[in-house]
Parts: sequence; structure tokens; C-alpha cells
Amino acid sequence: MAKKSFPLAKVYTLLEPGPVTLITTAHKGVANIMTQSWHTMMEFEPPLVGCVISGRNHSFAALKATRECAINIPTAELAKQVVLIGNCSGSKVDKFARSGLTALPASLVQAPLIAECYASLECRVADSRLVNSYNFFILEVVKAWVEPSIKQARTLHHRGKGEFMLAGETLKLPSRMK
Amino acid sequence: MAKKSFPLAKVYTLLEPGPVTLITTAHKGVANIMTQSWHTMMEFEPPLVGCVISGRNHSFAALKATRECAINIPTAELAKQVVLIGNCSGSKVDKFARSGLTALPASLVQAPLIAECYASLECRVADSRLVNSYNFFILEVVKAWVEPSIKQARTLHHRGKGEFMLAGETLKLPSRMK
Repeated sequence: MAKKSFPLAKVYTLLEPGPVTLITTAHKGVANIMTQSWHTMMEFEPPLVGCVISGRNHSFAALKATRECAINIPTAELAKQVVLIGNCSGSKVDKFARSGLTALPASLVQAPLIAECYASLECRVADSRLVNSYNFFILEVVKAWVEPSIKQARTLHHRGKGEFMLAGETLKLPSRMK
Repeated sequence: MAKKSFPLAKVYTLLEPGPVTLITTAHKGVANIMTQSWHTMMEFEPPLVGCVISGRNHSFAALKATRECAINIPTAELAKQVVLIGNCSGSKVDKFARSGLTALPASLVQAPLIAECYASLECRVADSRLVNSYNFFILEVVKAWVEPSIKQARTLHHRGKGEFMLAGETLKLPSRMK
């Protein structure tokens, strides 16, 4: 996909609905991907995202060492790759090769972007105070990319054990909420 | 709804897909509700949930003082009430009266449960280290209730400014993920 730059102030509209994400890292020249759903927006602008990256994940050490990653948001077409990536470890497998996904260079971080995802957020660790207690990283999104042709992405929302809710229809109500 | 007790170990299946929630508090005998989407699971069991409750919300002071709340999960039928509650302040309005929602007593906390929501999670503040920096409360779910007749809830997922994605169809793939 030919993604375009996306305003940082609107990043919350991508993550607030709770999609499954694919988080990429690069450490000592090796790229990795993990499937991730435990994240929340914490500030609008600059956008801050809180993420749990378990110490059991191979990505944990890479994120801790490099303090950089990219949050990539897949749509329903990538469901099989999302599950495949969630079920193997970067300690044993080259997940880009195994999944067939394409790594693209990011603009501000070493972690690659995933070409097939409709949105990619380049992130730096902003606060690691809760990493020791909860594996909780606070990330600042420093650059955002979105495929402009996709208006309402058919994102995946994990209900546990490989069951996903697919983003359904849209409801718009008058609101003063941001 | 006649909700039944729900296993704490499965609470993540309710919150991981990213639904809009209605968070209730009770402070000095006054109950309040806020609309909330910035939350993430942080641990499976006991279930920990990280929540941003802005200092601009009337609920902030109640949660800080009482260290208790309930996370109620509405379905699409309650969309109008969700927006109404998000667009007024408990400092001026009795949100239960205004929305017509029904407060039910909880079992372990003072905050009321919302009868019309399909799930309700009684919570206590477990860690407030990041409240000053980010208005970020880490809550422990101490009791969970779910309406047993609803298998795949039509939850609301906020995309910003009153636009919601409604939970769509279900996709099940073989997975070893929890």
C-alpha cells in the first residue's frame, strides 16, 4: 500500500477502537514482529500510547534496548498472518519471511513498517517507569502513515484464543466529544 | 438484565476488543457515570485494567478519593445514552436521571452497576503511580458480571467525534494464543 503521512493529532482515531496491532522492532540488524492487543491511547497530542509487551515476548528486549518500534494496524485480509505471528517466536523464526509480509523502512525509527498494513505508527519509548512492574511501555508516536483509500478499516479485535470480532458498520451520532 | 457472575480469568475477553465503556463511581452518596474508551488490559489474573480518567472529568476526584469504580460495557442499543453521558458533566447533571439508566448495587464496591449494560466489572485502584503524570489508573477487577444470554456482544468502538464502529461478524482461527 502507498501510505501517506497522517496528522499526529488524529492518531487516536486509529487506536481508540481497539484493533489488534502488529508491533515491529529492529535490534542488531534483525527485524521482528509481534501480535498485540493490549494498548490504549493516553494523550491526544503528541500522541501517547500505553502498550503491554510481555517479557515473554522476544520483542521485549529489542524495545527495551532500542526504545523504538512501529505499531502497524492490519485489516481482516491479514487475519491468518496475525495469528501466525502471534503463535511463533522471533527467537526461533524470521517472522517477516514466515508470514510473507513486507518490511519497509520507517522515516524516524529503525523498526520497519509493514507494507500490507493500512496504518503504521513510528514510535519511541517516552516513559518506561512501569516496565519493571507491568511490562508497560508508554510510547510517543512521532510519525504516522495511513493508506488514504481506506476510510473505514475492517480492523480485527481479539476476543481471545483466536476469536476475532471484525469491525462492522458505522454509526454516527451528534457529539461534542473529541 | 439479569447478569451472572463471570470468571475473573476471562475478563480480558470482554475488554481486549476495545469497547466503549461507561465507568461509574459513587462519592459522598452521589453516583456518576462517564463515557470512556482509553483502557487496556494489563494482566490476565487477577485482571488488571489501565484506564485514563482525565482530570477534566468529574469522575476523576471520585475515583481518586474512593479508589473504587465499575466498568460497564454497553451494546449498540445504548449508543444514544453513551453519547449523552459523554457530552455532559456530573458536576452539573445527575447522569443516571438524565440518561434513564438504572443503578444497581455492586457486591464489593460502592460504585453502582448499570443494569442495561451487558457486562459490569467491579474495580479497585491497584496502582496510582501514573495518575499525576498521565491521569492513568491501574484498576484490579475484583468481581465481574455478564448477561449470559449475550454470546457476541454488539459493542461500540469510538473512532472520534461521535463516530462509532459497531462490532461486526466473528472470525475464528486456530490459535495457541490466550
